[in-house]
Amino acid sequence: MTDRPKTPLLDKVASPADMKRLSDGELVTLAGELRAETISAVSETGGHLGAGLGVIELTVALHAVFDAPKDKIIWDVSHQSYPHKILTGRRDRIRTLRKRGGLSGFTKRSESPYDCFGAAHSSTSISAALGFAVARDLGGNCPEGLGDAIAVIGDGAMSAGMAFEAMNNAGHLGKRLIVILNDNEMSIAPPVGALSSYLSRLYAEEPFQELKAAAKGAVSLMPPFFQEGAKRAKEMLKGMTVGGTLFEELGFSYIGPIDGHDMDQLLPLLRTVKARATGPILIHAITKKGKGYAPAEARDDKGHATAKFDVITGKQVKTPSNAPSYTAVFGDELVALAAEDDKICAVTAAMPSGTGLDLMAERYPSRCFDVSIAEQHGVTFCAALAAGGMKPFCTMYSTFLQRGYDQIVHDVALQNLPVRFAIDRAGLVGADGATHAGSYDIAYLANLPNMVVMAASDEAELKHMVVTAASYDAGPIAFRYPRGEGVGVELPARGVALEIGKGRVVREGARVALLSFGTRLAEAEKAAEQLAAKGITPTVADARFAKPLDKEMILRLAREHEVLITLEEGAVGGFGSHVAQLLAEEGAFDAGLKFRSMVLPDWFIDQGSPSEMYAEAGLEAADIVTKVLDVLGVAQVKGQRA
Amino acid sequence: MTDRPKTPLLDKVASPADMKRLSDGELVTLAGELRAETISAVSETGGHLGAGLGVIELTVALHAVFDAPKDKIIWDVSHQSYPHKILTGRRDRIRTLRKRGGLSGFTKRSESPYDCFGAAHSSTSISAALGFAVARDLGGNCPEGLGDAIAVIGDGAMSAGMAFEAMNNAGHLGKRLIVILNDNEMSIAPPVGALSSYLSRLYAEEPFQELKAAAKGAVSLMPPFFQEGAKRAKEMLKGMTVGGTLFEELGFSYIGPIDGHDMDQLLPLLRTVKARATGPILIHAITKKGKGYAPAEARDDKGHATAKFDVITGKQVKTPSNAPSYTAVFGDELVALAAEDDKICAVTAAMPSGTGLDLMAERYPSRCFDVSIAEQHGVTFCAALAAGGMKPFCTMYSTFLQRGYDQIVHDVALQNLPVRFAIDRAGLVGADGATHAGSYDIAYLANLPNMVVMAASDEAELKHMVVTAASYDAGPIAFRYPRGEGVGVELPARGVALEIGKGRVVREGARVALLSFGTRLAEAEKAAEQLAAKGITPTVADARFAKPLDKEMILRLAREHEVLITLEEGAVGGFGSHVAQLLAEEGAFDAGLKFRSMVLPDWFIDQGSPSEMYAEAGLEAADIVTKVLDVLGVAQVKGQRA
Repeated sequence: MTDRPKTPLLDKVASPADMKRLSDGELVTLAGELRAETISAVSETGGHLGAGLGVIELTVALHAVFDAPKDKIIWDVSHQSYPHKILTGRRDRIRTLRKRGGLSGFTKRSESPYDCFGAAHSSTSISAALGFAVARDLGGNCPEGLGDAIAVIGDGAMSAGMAFEAMNNAGHLGKRLIVILNDNEMSIAPPVGALSSYLSRLYAEEPFQELKAAAKGAVSLMPPFFQEGAKRAKEMLKGMTVGGTLFEELGFSYIGPIDGHDMDQLLPLLRTVKARATGPILIHAITKKGKGYAPAEARDDKGHATAKFDVITGKQVKTPSNAPSYTAVFGDELVALAAEDDKICAVTAAMPSGTGLDLMAERYPSRCFDVSIAEQHGVTFCAALAAGGMKPFCTMYSTFLQRGYDQIVHDVALQNLPVRFAIDRAGLVGADGATHAGSYDIAYLANLPNMVVMAASDEAELKHMVVTAASYDAGPIAFRYPRGEGVGVELPARGVALEIGKGRVVREGARVALLSFGTRLAEAEKAAEQLAAKGITPTVADARFAKPLDKEMILRLAREHEVLITLEEGAVGGFGSHVAQLLAEEGAFDAGLKFRSMVLPDWFIDQGSPSEMYAEAGLEAADIVTKVLDVLGVAQVKGQRA
Repeated sequence: MTDRPKTPLLDKVASPADMKRLSDGELVTLAGELRAETISAVSETGGHLGAGLGVIELTVALHAVFDAPKDKIIWDVSHQSYPHKILTGRRDRIRTLRKRGGLSGFTKRSESPYDCFGAAHSSTSISAALGFAVARDLGGNCPEGLGDAIAVIGDGAMSAGMAFEAMNNAGHLGKRLIVILNDNEMSIAPPVGALSSYLSRLYAEEPFQELKAAAKGAVSLMPPFFQEGAKRAKEMLKGMTVGGTLFEELGFSYIGPIDGHDMDQLLPLLRTVKARATGPILIHAITKKGKGYAPAEARDDKGHATAKFDVITGKQVKTPSNAPSYTAVFGDELVALAAEDDKICAVTAAMPSGTGLDLMAERYPSRCFDVSIAEQHGVTFCAALAAGGMKPFCTMYSTFLQRGYDQIVHDVALQNLPVRFAIDRAGLVGADGATHAGSYDIAYLANLPNMVVMAASDEAELKHMVVTAASYDAGPIAFRYPRGEGVGVELPARGVALEIGKGRVVREGARVALLSFGTRLAEAEKAAEQLAAKGITPTVADARFAKPLDKEMILRLAREHEVLITLEEGAVGGFGSHVAQLLAEEGAFDAGLKFRSMVLPDWFIDQGSPSEMYAEAGLEAADIVTKVLDVLGVAQVKGQRA
């Protein structure tokens, strides 16, 4: 571990109130110390580094000028909120980031009153800021009071329709509201889309350099802009800045672009806005993701997410992997299929690398589409690609696919179009915590007519499912797989198509059947081993399909066993519920089958390692053993149920 | 019935191919006949009139110039597609619109190859057009071929984030693609939002009148625009039109505004676009909803949706109602609550009248927000209103709330914010058919931690649930209720708050318990009457809550009855699945409880009357009787199960 940085000024800041006493020069110093502290902390914890480094000055300036928690500072996505956490009373726990029991990697209302609105999925901040602004003007009861509402949103997040909806509504309502567009030309991957080109033009073709040079001079022009009539203001604004027409057309006053790392621009501008603003204002700040830490700036992703690292060298400490990740297995198999079939194409919503589509983008760029953070569009775009005779893989994280739910129902399932949904990060995901859990996709997909829903129990199964999805043309098909490494099984050179709606029994036993959907299969097998020591030898089966169910296999398991327990990495309403519906309809309960469905519990599970999280969820091998003994009425555990 | 209009030219058009032989003058005549035929047909069927009348000329011009079904004409929402249906081989069935077994009120792929992409939810058309355009350029296999992709989208639909996402992506990809912005200053209600003001400015402040007068003259300027270099084109465009910067910034060539009822503008423009377009083009057409039919034009909603009517007088034939609608009961109770509590506020997504919020908007305009078609923003806006100490009612149709699903998970449930979800149009909805069915909300809400989920069994219960929601401040709470009239129970002056998680037994019986969630309660009671005649006297209970379940009541029902059957107007994964999970965990199945869960079936149910649809779904009283007899093993029905 490198020595901790010296931070004499930061040491005196217990909360933003302590910043009010500092001079502008001291605030610049404070920003430097905050940057060093952020780098040092993330070097120990891993996490999101680049985003926070990009908003160091903005964070200091906002907390120096505004009065949180009365004023509501809302960090969009909130990858960039670590410096904010350090300044708002959480410095002592900053080195517990993303660990079980530690600070969340995102803003979180339950963590601090300074986190007035939690985030993690992108593009919610303007809606949230508008809600606070309206609540303020209507006299809402808020323990911390209700002052200014300030959304800090990246240019990547601005591409989501939700942000546009909020801008459209905010421009219409005309409430005092501040949106800071943190334009770093990056979301996670470099951004795509017309809006992004537009933003680039705003400062590439125009005198941003001059403005930067003018610094304090330019900002001193601000007060009259607010003092005088709208017409004058608009002229001045146009003279002073470079445009922003798009935002102005939506009813915002546009200010910018400004240098988001220059405190001499930020402080006076924010003070003026605070003193004079009336309606909605958009401040366009140009920043650099990873700013001030050379190894981050040098990386392609600007240090977006990092493992623990050495501060001096920037070298990340990665634990060696035992097996390829599910993501990589998917990406490889898809590319192999794409080589054979020119109708195969793929869509990602700003996650080319996270989803393994970077390989596809490299090999078959004309058939790989990054639609930007736009899941709604992405799903319907895939529906039409399918209607046009292509074989689209709609590749998204389970939690983000929620954004396209209506489109899955209305454009895909209802029209029975053969879109292939490759659902990464299914189940609990580890350090990203509750906001990123893929808990609901089984439930929200398996009750849609026409939909086929699979889950891979290991990485070899995933290969088969990619091939199955590619070869299935009768309607939509989805397959889910978890974050992280596979279990280490031998991988076939290529996958083979599975028979639709057929599961497999992996271990024949008696009395008890464990029927798993997804990667709990390994836990079921472990549980079976442990139970064998107690003289119970469960049958273990891999359902493969939540829809259509393998009716024959499931009814046989029900007939031939006293107990049937389903397992899944999802909430109630999914696989187990479909099995229960089948068993009920077929009269299996009438005969006294002892049925249990082990699902995610009815609470949101905070970050930890996946196995810590699954232990909390009660879905580890030990939990299965307990459940089996309980159902069988073995004395020592019977009492635990109540 | 009024005499059918004389339509000599239209009579000769069996498909768009027949239109290619017509002169421009004849196409104008054809448009007139098509308008008369549309009015005549809808006068007999009821349905969406204003939207179709607004695009008569556009429909004729598109089918005259382009070559559907190879060229893909995509009608956004598709309320306006009746004239298109008449021209594309479905005139003989146009008077079956929205009836069971008849034509759908929307475009539908399974109905005609001319309906290349079905719609009903708004703002999907640009995504769909882009998908077809990309499939075309990638050589997709489409039986009808793949030519031009043309989206026709209203200004209201353009306010949805999804449309922005698609524009952003289309502008980036630069594919040849045509978007026709059908600007009638109306969605269903008059549109709101900054975009709408922007569009108004585009033609209000600028020489649209002159352009209109110039007619042919202006359009004859078009070819050079495409022939010459981009720079020249842009200058000409700017000279000729009034702006459209917002769209140009997104990478579209903007043409307009043009008069969407003037065939002399439409035909040459579309021909030129067809001949010369390369990248994405947006044509801004100004139209009048209800155009050419005075009674529609005179109505506030411009004849958006209508019952059957008399063509001469425009007078609608409405069947007298026996009970107030659920929508009205909700609206009244909310206003009464708002009078007492100034923290109560409400949000609608462009449906003030459909949701009953028009009354709230009238009485308490500062506390009623129409966010436009923007469910994602609407939900998160409510979350922040709640965080700011307000009591927001997020009032949406079940099917449209799907658009805000991720926001419900991520912004509301995860943060445990007390947003009240008033979910109208729950269950099957009648003439609007499968696209509008509210089938999934129970399933997608009840498995979210922190969420309370209620369903009203009648209109008096709805009053109680509105009050319950208003008074519940511990977290999010949802209540669902169907489209249409209540069952006619006596209404209390005011609702009273229900105890959270408590159901009620409405009829004590023996052997069989019918446990209903929602308005199937009346069918359960009917079934109980019918069963009584056979000597079976079921207990009937109203669950009221799908979450939290009334554990005590349900376990008592399980203990004291041989058979327990749940009923709900929703898909599997919802109420019945939660009951099954409870019964399994509590060991009720081990004891041989005969359990069944009656839910919506695993297919999409086409339009019809609600009772026709519920009969198809197998959720009417007769189906309950059959199910009970079946489970009890009464001989004559036993064989039906297989």
